[in-house]
Amino acid sequence: MKNKYKVTFKPMNVSIHVPEGESLLRAAILANVHINASCGGNGTCGKCKVILESGKINNITVMNLSQEEIKDGYYLACKVIVKDDIIVNIPIESQLGDKKVLIKDSKGIHRQPTQILSPEIIEDICKPDPIGKKYFLELAEPTLEDNISDIQRIIRELKNRYDIQEKDILVNNKVLRQIPYVLREARFKITVTLLNYKDKVILSRIEPGDTTHMQYALCIDVGTTSVYALLIDVTNGKILTEASDYNAQLTCGEDVITRIVFAQRKDGLSKLQGLIGETISNLANVVVDKCGITLEDISYLVVAGNTTMIHLLLGIPPQYIRETPYVPVSNTFPPTMVEELGININSHAYIYIIPSVASYLGGDIISGLIACSFTTRKEVCLYIDIGTNGEMVLGCGDWMVACSCSAGPALEGGTIKFGIRATEGAIEEVRINPLTYEPMILTIGQKKPIGICGSGLIDTVAELFECGIIDQQGKFYTHLNTEYIRRGESGFEYVLAFAENTDIGKDIVLTETDIEDLIRAKSAAYAGIKILLQNVGLTFDDIKYIIISGNFGTYVDIQKSITIGLFPEVPKDKFVFIGNGSLLGTRVCAMSKDMMETAERIANSITNFELSENKDFMDEFIKGLFLPYTDANEFKGVMDRIAISQRFGR
Amino acid sequence: MKNKYKVTFKPMNVSIHVPEGESLLRAAILANVHINASCGGNGTCGKCKVILESGKINNITVMNLSQEEIKDGYYLACKVIVKDDIIVNIPIESQLGDKKVLIKDSKGIHRQPTQILSPEIIEDICKPDPIGKKYFLELAEPTLEDNISDIQRIIRELKNRYDIQEKDILVNNKVLRQIPYVLREARFKITVTLLNYKDKVILSRIEPGDTTHMQYALCIDVGTTSVYALLIDVTNGKILTEASDYNAQLTCGEDVITRIVFAQRKDGLSKLQGLIGETISNLANVVVDKCGITLEDISYLVVAGNTTMIHLLLGIPPQYIRETPYVPVSNTFPPTMVEELGININSHAYIYIIPSVASYLGGDIISGLIACSFTTRKEVCLYIDIGTNGEMVLGCGDWMVACSCSAGPALEGGTIKFGIRATEGAIEEVRINPLTYEPMILTIGQKKPIGICGSGLIDTVAELFECGIIDQQGKFYTHLNTEYIRRGESGFEYVLAFAENTDIGKDIVLTETDIEDLIRAKSAAYAGIKILLQNVGLTFDDIKYIIISGNFGTYVDIQKSITIGLFPEVPKDKFVFIGNGSLLGTRVCAMSKDMMETAERIANSITNFELSENKDFMDEFIKGLFLPYTDANEFKGVMDRIAISQRFGR
Repeated sequence: MKNKYKVTFKPMNVSIHVPEGESLLRAAILANVHINASCGGNGTCGKCKVILESGKINNITVMNLSQEEIKDGYYLACKVIVKDDIIVNIPIESQLGDKKVLIKDSKGIHRQPTQILSPEIIEDICKPDPIGKKYFLELAEPTLEDNISDIQRIIRELKNRYDIQEKDILVNNKVLRQIPYVLREARFKITVTLLNYKDKVILSRIEPGDTTHMQYALCIDVGTTSVYALLIDVTNGKILTEASDYNAQLTCGEDVITRIVFAQRKDGLSKLQGLIGETISNLANVVVDKCGITLEDISYLVVAGNTTMIHLLLGIPPQYIRETPYVPVSNTFPPTMVEELGININSHAYIYIIPSVASYLGGDIISGLIACSFTTRKEVCLYIDIGTNGEMVLGCGDWMVACSCSAGPALEGGTIKFGIRATEGAIEEVRINPLTYEPMILTIGQKKPIGICGSGLIDTVAELFECGIIDQQGKFYTHLNTEYIRRGESGFEYVLAFAENTDIGKDIVLTETDIEDLIRAKSAAYAGIKILLQNVGLTFDDIKYIIISGNFGTYVDIQKSITIGLFPEVPKDKFVFIGNGSLLGTRVCAMSKDMMETAERIANSITNFELSENKDFMDEFIKGLFLPYTDANEFKGVMDRIAISQRFGR
Repeated sequence: MKNKYKVTFKPMNVSIHVPEGESLLRAAILANVHINASCGGNGTCGKCKVILESGKINNITVMNLSQEEIKDGYYLACKVIVKDDIIVNIPIESQLGDKKVLIKDSKGIHRQPTQILSPEIIEDICKPDPIGKKYFLELAEPTLEDNISDIQRIIRELKNRYDIQEKDILVNNKVLRQIPYVLREARFKITVTLLNYKDKVILSRIEPGDTTHMQYALCIDVGTTSVYALLIDVTNGKILTEASDYNAQLTCGEDVITRIVFAQRKDGLSKLQGLIGETISNLANVVVDKCGITLEDISYLVVAGNTTMIHLLLGIPPQYIRETPYVPVSNTFPPTMVEELGININSHAYIYIIPSVASYLGGDIISGLIACSFTTRKEVCLYIDIGTNGEMVLGCGDWMVACSCSAGPALEGGTIKFGIRATEGAIEEVRINPLTYEPMILTIGQKKPIGICGSGLIDTVAELFECGIIDQQGKFYTHLNTEYIRRGESGFEYVLAFAENTDIGKDIVLTETDIEDLIRAKSAAYAGIKILLQNVGLTFDDIKYIIISGNFGTYVDIQKSITIGLFPEVPKDKFVFIGNGSLLGTRVCAMSKDMMETAERIANSITNFELSENKDFMDEFIKGLFLPYTDANEFKGVMDRIAISQRFGR
């Protein structure tokens, strides 16, 4: 846990505690203190000047500061890293004057995700009993009186010592080919790896000597955009290290649909399979290097991903996932040797795939449900994972209903004029001064802005709405007199950053069309949730927790999301962020064959609603094409706050 | 069943019934009528002249006959093919005079093997329930309301229509990759192949339309020398065709031991694996061509072979089979895709291996036991398969004991000066005129002799013994005045064919050393049988049937084998020849998963005696180094007959 420090902004005397390492600019955003900032935290616009009153810092950036300013203790807020309790004064030019600093609601739980499942509490979910385990065997050496076959000698010992029955042991020829040499090299003291498969075990490896202290599993979340890896010590379930990388398939298309189309080309499928195989082996190399072990030490992999990604990984044609009635080839997959998939890790490891439910309800969701112990919950919960598709599961240990709705790529930056993925330079947080309408933006990596990502988009639209810049339909009020609101090529637009402060040499704007796209996206997601509730006759009040999974969920501002009507207006303590639930679930499954079986069981038992031609869904979708919603009673708090804010602001 | 015709030899008026197509020379041998014949039935020596008295023949060979002889109705017996009832007169020059024609015991059941298991009675052994079966499925086409995965749709129908449970179905990625296309091409009317594996089934193939009338299995007996194949129609169990070829590994060594040594060379094992794979795919091509089907139509293979051959086929190091304490890597093997073994048949067929018991008691023996329904027998039987190793199993359905004894290669022609494998030109049957000591020889394929094979060797030694040419220790009586017995380079020898009548330009002889080798071989085999009986406290009288399996068994003369003490002196109707029991058993297993399981069960339950350092075995072996045996009481009949024969003959 990082140290936290208190940052106090003067003259308004607002304080906030932030973790060591945050920038002052970010602290201001978290505290809802407005400091001018146009370049995303890059230091180039020079607007976010503050004066240090107390506290130690080691800032050496003098860029955009005059000699006199330096002497007077001026700093750029975006370049000051918090590592002490600090008091700063915001000079008038950064402040926009007394009245202009507003203190809005605190940010809720954004950036402080409460993981439902901490690594330490896997034991609470299940007795740790990994799907793969090593057994050290000291075998009697063969004699003329006892010259049973090598494998029989191993099986006999497994039965005598561990009560594992011969009929349950599957042996492949690969292992048989090594057995005679390893046995004799090791003078019949060996370690075998047994991997669970249905009600049997696969004897996947034989090693000389006792290597039971060296048992590792690689957990992988295969996303359409990014791939995440965890290296697990199977002996105790601990995470040793993690790594992530872009999915190398990105070169063949950004989203699931373009990948499926690519797979239909000649050799397209095998190219895609090769690329994801490369990504996984690269990650495997990274994590084993970090931990000083070798690729050979990995006993097995557990992989979760959406249904298309899994098809591509296994080289199975995904074509019919895309065409109505959206049929995948399979939702469950047997453990397969990584080698067979062209993944260059080692010759013995098997890959386990978390099962899916349907074409658009993948193993990543099932994995997430496992991660938050959805299957053992008594109270009704809602699990949401939003990206291009919004997947949601409502239920508890006894029953689950689910659906997936195509939110469109807006929430991931797609279709938006300056939309980009959440990469360096993407505007991810935005505040708008309700008096001057000037934006305060923060980019990922504090680079000069190059575009806007999902969370930035939600922030912007929510702020535009709260500041009275756009109406309930997302249309600009045209009477506002500011350079930030203007008529562009295709209707009105809001300027988030002028060309000189960007890294793309162009003004970064949000257009009315962009806002429409976002509204459609949020409406689709919200409609999905409503349909699930309607189908089981429940309301939002019946939901104990709303569990938000996924990268998008991690960085999105919960209050802003409610403001635009993406999430329902329920008490904020009902929201729980679990980060990458899919990845967490792979770890749980890696450490528990029961949970792996549970994954299969729930994948089979979830009732999935196909929404694509569902009339109720269409009705709900249309109702959602407003900010925050047609029926203001569903978002009373938002409407009240906006009324106050706008009255106060203007 | 072929027609049989009566052949009568004059002047001695001996008749015998022989199947259509036999030569007159062979009929004479079967009838124990001596006709001079030195060239093995090739027609070149011209000695076997006979005069046709009645019966139609269509012989056109006039070789070695004068115009006058032709006019007088002379023919060469070796060139006359029986296709009618025939009476022939043997002229004096072929007969060797009145007294010289002896009528010995009839040949027993040689060349007329009574198959315990005829193809028609598989049903008696077991309910036909092949280890692989096809199922035609007419699936509902997917809709938005019913858009389960492709494989789930198949599994659902298998459950509904055939009560096959999902948990028992194993699906591999290979099949998954084809499923979406095949399903839609066939408008969801498909045929799936399910192959049994332990208590599960492997979904090995999916085809468009209904192909349930096309189900084929390839049964293979992999011998060290020869490989035999049967193509089975799985729908009715019928044998469609058969083929055989030499094991291509012969180029790397003649016997098991040299192959094992070769496998230890760099790349030796993979070369041997490749060669047997080639042999099998060649045979597969031959049988499918004969039947007008394609390689793709083969659903699965069932293979039996000795433990070393199976190790080599699977690419498993056989090294420790050869070294004390003779440990194989495994005796049981999972079904494996033929493709994985580099066998070029098709991409979906699996290969099933009949399990072995020990390094020198292979799946070929287990397969043979299955073939003769050993496992359901109430009476005690003895199963014998003799080659370089003699394998023998004693027991019944309730218990079995077994051993393998190294008979040495003599019985297969090895170590014998002019010994060769049972190929064309090999002397396979021999009779010796007890007065003149002149041999009558018949070769395989009726070619000029090039050497002597196992059955010819047994015949020769038995005849030498019966005619009083050698004594009980196999040593020549040196006082006999004939050109056929002479002192050679290394002691005495018997001339089977003079150089001018051979195809090798050398006299073909049998030496005293050769006879010693044969005596050692037969003694080892006989000692093995005695050890088994001693261990269970039984005698020969307790044995209901002595079942002789194997190529060697098919061609050997049972009476001659008793004469030399290879087989015990029991009533001849106790001997049953099943031909290639190993191959027959593969067919039974292919058609019955119960029998395949039985094979595994008996492989696990047979008590195998390791004889290599067993003192009792050594004692028995030494007792057997006489013709027929140390204790003449065990071979009373032989001794009596020899006494009469020698008295009468001389």
